[in-house]
Amino acid sequence: MYHHVKKLMYTVNVGDPDPRFGKMLLEQFGGANGELAAALQYSIQGLNCEDPGRKDLLMDIGTEELSHLEVIGSLARMHLKPLKEGDKSEAEQDPLIAVVGGGGVSLNNSQGNPWTADYLKISGQIEVDLRSNIAAEARAKITYERLINYCDCPGTKDALKFLMTREIAHMKAFGAALESLSKGPLEIGELPVMDEYVNKYFNDSTGEGELGEDTTGPWNSGNGWEVVNNPGFDSAGK
Amino acid sequence: MYHHVKKLMYTVNVGDPDPRFGKMLLEQFGGANGELAAALQYSIQGLNCEDPGRKDLLMDIGTEELSHLEVIGSLARMHLKPLKEGDKSEAEQDPLIAVVGGGGVSLNNSQGNPWTADYLKISGQIEVDLRSNIAAEARAKITYERLINYCDCPGTKDALKFLMTREIAHMKAFGAALESLSKGPLEIGELPVMDEYVNKYFNDSTGEGELGEDTTGPWNSGNGWEVVNNPGFDSAGK
Amino acid sequence: MYHHVKKLMYTVNVGDPDPRFGKMLLEQFGGANGELAAALQYSIQGLNCEDPGRKDLLMDIGTEELSHLEVIGSLARMHLKPLKEGDKSEAEQDPLIAVVGGGGVSLNNSQGNPWTADYLKISGQIEVDLRSNIAAEARAKITYERLINYCDCPGTKDALKFLMTREIAHMKAFGAALESLSKGPLEIGELPVMDEYVNKYFNDSTGEGELGEDTTGPWNSGNGWEVVNNPGFDSAGK
Amino acid sequence: MYHHVKKLMYTVNVGDPDPRFGKMLLEQFGGANGELAAALQYSIQGLNCEDPGRKDLLMDIGTEELSHLEVIGSLARMHLKPLKEGDKSEAEQDPLIAVVGGGGVSLNNSQGNPWTADYLKISGQIEVDLRSNIAAEARAKITYERLINYCDCPGTKDALKFLMTREIAHMKAFGAALESLSKGPLEIGELPVMDEYVNKYFNDSTGEGELGEDTTGPWNSGNGWEVVNNPGFDSAGK
Amino acid sequence: MYHHVKKLMYTVNVGDPDPRFGKMLLEQFGGANGELAAALQYSIQGLNCEDPGRKDLLMDIGTEELSHLEVIGSLARMHLKPLKEGDKSEAEQDPLIAVVGGGGVSLNNSQGNPWTADYLKISGQIEVDLRSNIAAEARAKITYERLINYCDCPGTKDALKFLMTREIAHMKAFGAALESLSKGPLEIGELPVMDEYVNKYFNDSTGEGELGEDTTGPWNSGNGWEVVNNPGFDSAGK
Amino acid sequence: MYHHVKKLMYTVNVGDPDPRFGKMLLEQFGGANGELAAALQYSIQGLNCEDPGRKDLLMDIGTEELSHLEVIGSLARMHLKPLKEGDKSEAEQDPLIAVVGGGGVSLNNSQGNPWTADYLKISGQIEVDLRSNIAAEARAKITYERLINYCDCPGTKDALKFLMTREIAHMKAFGAALESLSKGPLEIGELPVMDEYVNKYFNDSTGEGELGEDTTGPWNSGNGWEVVNNPGFDSAGK
Repeated sequence: MYHHVKKLMYTVNVGDPDPRFGKMLLEQFGGANGELAAALQYSIQGLNCEDPGRKDLLMDIGTEELSHLEVIGSLARMHLKPLKEGDKSEAEQDPLIAVVGGGGVSLNNSQGNPWTADYLKISGQIEVDLRSNIAAEARAKITYERLINYCDCPGTKDALKFLMTREIAHMKAFGAALESLSKGPLEIGELPVMDEYVNKYFNDSTGEGELGEDTTGPWNSGNGWEVVNNPGFDSAGK
Repeated sequence: MYHHVKKLMYTVNVGDPDPRFGKMLLEQFGGANGELAAALQYSIQGLNCEDPGRKDLLMDIGTEELSHLEVIGSLARMHLKPLKEGDKSEAEQDPLIAVVGGGGVSLNNSQGNPWTADYLKISGQIEVDLRSNIAAEARAKITYERLINYCDCPGTKDALKFLMTREIAHMKAFGAALESLSKGPLEIGELPVMDEYVNKYFNDSTGEGELGEDTTGPWNSGNGWEVVNNPGFDSAGK
Repeated sequence: MYHHVKKLMYTVNVGDPDPRFGKMLLEQFGGANGELAAALQYSIQGLNCEDPGRKDLLMDIGTEELSHLEVIGSLARMHLKPLKEGDKSEAEQDPLIAVVGGGGVSLNNSQGNPWTADYLKISGQIEVDLRSNIAAEARAKITYERLINYCDCPGTKDALKFLMTREIAHMKAFGAALESLSKGPLEIGELPVMDEYVNKYFNDSTGEGELGEDTTGPWNSGNGWEVVNNPGFDSAGK
Repeated sequence: MYHHVKKLMYTVNVGDPDPRFGKMLLEQFGGANGELAAALQYSIQGLNCEDPGRKDLLMDIGTEELSHLEVIGSLARMHLKPLKEGDKSEAEQDPLIAVVGGGGVSLNNSQGNPWTADYLKISGQIEVDLRSNIAAEARAKITYERLINYCDCPGTKDALKFLMTREIAHMKAFGAALESLSKGPLEIGELPVMDEYVNKYFNDSTGEGELGEDTTGPWNSGNGWEVVNNPGFDSAGK
Repeated sequence: MYHHVKKLMYTVNVGDPDPRFGKMLLEQFGGANGELAAALQYSIQGLNCEDPGRKDLLMDIGTEELSHLEVIGSLARMHLKPLKEGDKSEAEQDPLIAVVGGGGVSLNNSQGNPWTADYLKISGQIEVDLRSNIAAEARAKITYERLINYCDCPGTKDALKFLMTREIAHMKAFGAALESLSKGPLEIGELPVMDEYVNKYFNDSTGEGELGEDTTGPWNSGNGWEVVNNPGFDSAGK
Repeated sequence: MYHHVKKLMYTVNVGDPDPRFGKMLLEQFGGANGELAAALQYSIQGLNCEDPGRKDLLMDIGTEELSHLEVIGSLARMHLKPLKEGDKSEAEQDPLIAVVGGGGVSLNNSQGNPWTADYLKISGQIEVDLRSNIAAEARAKITYERLINYCDCPGTKDALKFLMTREIAHMKAFGAALESLSKGPLEIGELPVMDEYVNKYFNDSTGEGELGEDTTGPWNSGNGWEVVNNPGFDSAGK
């Protein structure tokens, strides 16, 4: 069961509204890597999870993300306020908010795309879901960082830094939950892989030009790697 | 530039077609974690990437996934063949393939949803993209594992094991590319986080019942964690 | 801020799982008129609302719907359990759940369509939003009624009746909130309508055949109505 | 069967084209609450309806909305005309219209989202469909009102007022059709609700802060209401 | 303006309902190549068209397709009737129709995907739109042909043959409208192409194997063609 | 199997970046008629095709379009470069690229809509697929023509002309492949049409006004046509 408390998780002080920046903020409200996506991905993973400890973790963080959704929604509304007051040139920036929403926010991203569950990654396998969540938190962190870099308002920056910091706290928690599973870094599920193909590196992009050149790194040399050049012109598998 | 060679990356031997299983296979053809999603996610990340070595890696694996798409598409067509030959009871299983496609496959998932770029995670930040890719490979591995567990045909199983193995090879390569970046496991982008919030664990889901109970693990104890209970009823941030 | 308690809002007792019925239940989980749609429609309306009383109402019911989402999700998981245990013939019923989700639910409807914010109706005008909500509750009531009529399991029926009842309770509350606004039944917003057109009834569908015949009722006779026949062939407006 | 007459339902006089306003108008052409949505919602409800009188009503209004679609499409084209004539700075406002459509309109909303049947509410139950239609007309009325408030052109305003007025005429007709059904305001379908839960008001959002405070109104006091405070922390149902 | 007549364009006689076939029929109701797509593609092209003759043609056929939509919808409803009468095993075939629609049809395809304007091809250039329409009619013809091949009911077959025939009549009309434009078969728009590249055939798929072998035909030999082999490994353009 | 070569198919020289024009270019990257749509439509048709010559043709052109995707993606990135460098006023033009993508492109169109397989037309019938492809190339040609007309940069224009030219080369090849099939221009599939309906022209849009007037042309006179006026008011079929 859920309960709501009529307070924001973090105090939001906004100076002059900046509607163009408000539109950008919608990425973290109804966008692909935003707070609704985080809240629902973790909460539904939690509903499905049968490992009691990690189920608790998923519900704790899933619930916190709902509270973040409120913070970012409140910030966005403050910046988008000029769209409510009948100023035509502002309203033209985002007719979905000005005309359809009457100045209120909806679950769309910065360009008016409706939020969709296609954004979510829910696999029903805990070592997979935790990796999806670590990646999701990394995407959220960099998105907040870019928003902060485009933000002129100190109060907004402060709230965005809080939200950005929490994503790293979540990344730390998901990482600890993954490491404590006692599965190796390449162990996913139960089925063994085929030894003859797991260490082959297929060099499928070759030549040199505007799009770069062939390189060497730990992803294709050392570590047991066997490089197969131009597999398309030779037998790659069998 | 791309070049195509009229061979499959892995020999496909299918015995009796199994159209219901063929529908399941479409998850890896036009589904959220399938081969088209992998091919396009890595190739577009590669197009955007300015780190020469990892750009090469992204193009190598992105191109390989296009070859996987052909293998899985060929497998699916063989299993879905009965939908082409006018057998009404088979055709009813999937009118999109039987009636719209004339027995041919399209870029839909097992339930007829069209493939969408909303499945992709492309951030323009290499330490983020690599994490998204590691998670994507983990999802692909578990999906292949489940398909293999539902598969009765030895030739199909063999090809699926090859594809499953390659996902782990890619996971190893992306992991090596991430580790060699010389960024710590919680370092994403450049902006520093707020020290007073990064080690707080908000216990937002409490009580005990059908949905579990509060637990302790490395994700909320030790490691510098400070637990805040019921933050909704207290001040969480400021 | 949100808080989660690890109990379901209503006890769920499921006898033998019925996976085909479980798929139907997904309509109320990730479907167009389901609990997620209700929770988010009311909560985002509440975030935007500036009328303190009705803002409180919207948040109360929006939060309750999140608790309903957990109940229906738990019911669906119990009925879909056979999809997790590797039974191929059951898994073929829903590869999205069996293969992609590993037996766990996701935010899709009964036919695998991802939930989308296009389902939501959020207008930023309280007398409009309340009408949208009354209609949404009416749709939810009839959907639960149909599910109950297709349900063989007494424990499931009991939980669905609880949820169905709550929709009527919400309908009553939204209705009271609308009536107490002191706006007439045809008063929406502020702009006056054009008197010469508001009582005209355009008879745009005429004749008699397989598709019915012209009729008379309070929607086109009495009440000040003036009927215009075949306006397409005459001047309708000016 | 349908027949088309080569006249607009209402004369459209547009002075200087205003392409930014033209984009806003697209909300009523290919948007969520626009004329195509209205036309198809009512017409498909009418196709399904087995009550002869209300079937006729649904077809009359569904057909009128098709004629509205032409009016709003013609208005939008006139305002968007500068996008056809090769003026780059105008074309940048909406490449979908300028580049893809060659200056012609398509069934997209103001921000380029394609129209989708997810906008429609069709339940196959007349007392439900009529409520959905009343809500739809209320949304259309307020959308036209906002467009008029942002409109500088007298001829456009006049046509929009005609369309806005017709929405209220439809709302009156749908309301009369609902009231004449002899079902009470809370009677939906056939299945009775559970008496012990239908008058409970769950106070799920409590406390006081930036997001408001607990309030009392006819939606939670009087009228037989019994308030349950903080149901998440107590047993809500059983 | 539109007018509706309460008759079907073609008499529909259905014997025993066949709900699985009814689902297939939905492809021509709310599917990608169905009657709604045809009606809206041609009607919106017609709204945009400034060539008076072809504008009339587009409106004639666009309006006819609306009448086809009614025929196919009526056929589908008759076949889907068992989903309305509470038979659980039938209802499980399509919960969107049985549970959400109460037995009525909606604008979805055979697998429940909502109709979307992404299906439409509207370019604002008459010689392009006519080619899109010829292709659309060809797709509609083959879809009807396949439906007829899967159909056991003589009355349904007869109505489908009528609809199929009309698609060829439309194809003939669009073809005549294209040919009478006095533009060559490769003349699109106004801008001239680059002579040095227009007759080059790039042989980008080579080799021999499960996926075929290199071939010769009028598409790459004679007709002024100059074949460039393996352009990826050589300079293709400059 | 696919192989990638690290060169572009055509040299791209971009002078001053023009981010607004870069957004327009996205139509040919991730838009409805763009290069990804072409590449996947032809390649999947090729995978399904059982006519060896035309299968080779489809794979040749499908692969070439992947190389075009790289060219247009590279052009777009160069023009969108100012969105990467932290300039807020540029970033506001497209937050999806600036904030979500860090300056990198994704598979969206000019207005941020995600690419979807709903854009594709794949029928499994070669005389139908070739017509869909001819229409697709015509749409691509006119889209490039309009982009060129809005383009100020000589290097970009040159590359766009190359791509535009190649679409006509493809149109020529698909046309030759269609003509050499020895099927008449109205022969689609195998089922014969009904002689009594194939030459009737239904005049469903009549009258005279702002929307035009009735006209005569080769699409409704001569050629065996029999015109039926106002079929809605008379029996059209039987």
